[in-house]
Amino acid sequence: MKLDRSKHCIIPQPLTRDAFAIFGDVIEVDEKRNNFMINDGYTQRYHDLAKVDVSTNAGKVLLNIFRATPLPEPIIVKKMERHPLSSQAFIPLGEQPYLVVVAPAGPFDETAIRVFSASPDQGVNYNPGTWHHFCLAQHEISDFLVVDRSSEGENCDIAKLNRFIEIGHAQ
Amino acid sequence: MKLDRSKHCIIPQPLTRDAFAIFGDVIEVDEKRNNFMINDGYTQRYHDLAKVDVSTNAGKVLLNIFRATPLPEPIIVKKMERHPLSSQAFIPLGEQPYLVVVAPAGPFDETAIRVFSASPDQGVNYNPGTWHHFCLAQHEISDFLVVDRSSEGENCDIAKLNRFIEIGHAQ
Repeated sequence: MKLDRSKHCIIPQPLTRDAFAIFGDVIEVDEKRNNFMINDGYTQRYHDLAKVDVSTNAGKVLLNIFRATPLPEPIIVKKMERHPLSSQAFIPLGEQPYLVVVAPAGPFDETAIRVFSASPDQGVNYNPGTWHHFCLAQHEISDFLVVDRSSEGENCDIAKLNRFIEIGHAQ
Repeated sequence: MKLDRSKHCIIPQPLTRDAFAIFGDVIEVDEKRNNFMINDGYTQRYHDLAKVDVSTNAGKVLLNIFRATPLPEPIIVKKMERHPLSSQAFIPLGEQPYLVVVAPAGPFDETAIRVFSASPDQGVNYNPGTWHHFCLAQHEISDFLVVDRSSEGENCDIAKLNRFIEIGHAQ
């Protein structure tokens, strides 16, 4: 098959819990979800914000920091990855927004790719198998806390796009 | 026994990995520890920064956000807590320093309390059983990502101090 390397453009949409539900969790303060006061009234606990799933094949949870350099503009999506055995969460530690590029779990369908703009107050947790682009910092080098799985056993598939996607800018 | 409610004062010390080693992990970027480039050279991965330990009694890992209000100054340490079944990690999501008050695991020894000043770029992970004060934000209401354990089974002990501690300020 001859590949079509022409591009099309996707404008990022705001990240919301509902829009992201089929891909995973949005990790954020939300007064409408389970939260309660602890510590003599000095701490509000926003409870259990993501389904961390790392236990397949006796996996253990890892806490890591990813220091991400922004890609050159315009950002071109050429490939995606998935971790079939585990969830993976990214929580921004800085003050910049970032981009989240995902496609549903299952056979890779590049026509189903979605692009979200996440605020500095929003983390994401990809469900096992959710296709996603690697960490897309914006504006400056940005640190993320990453919650994933120890690496015993192959746990990363890559899919290349036939038609590249340019990430546009909302007007 | 008549309690001695007089106070004494402890000046916070800078948080370092070595000084904190008997209490748990410091979660921070450290070029001297295991890190490597991924994502086509756009991400540096600082790998496996904390020993998350939540599996006792089939515990599962939780991701939460704690929104902490600073205590009135001067801060007085009156009690400490520990989670015998699990580690607990706090990673600051904002730009303010915070205080970390700990004592070694085992029978509570209030004479062994240590007070650290953590920078906004440093998280901490308390080992199971490490005595610690609850979340001590400074300067403004501050959010922390907290990695702990689902709450089945009792997992919090409280110890009250006979002699309160006032947390002083470094000159």
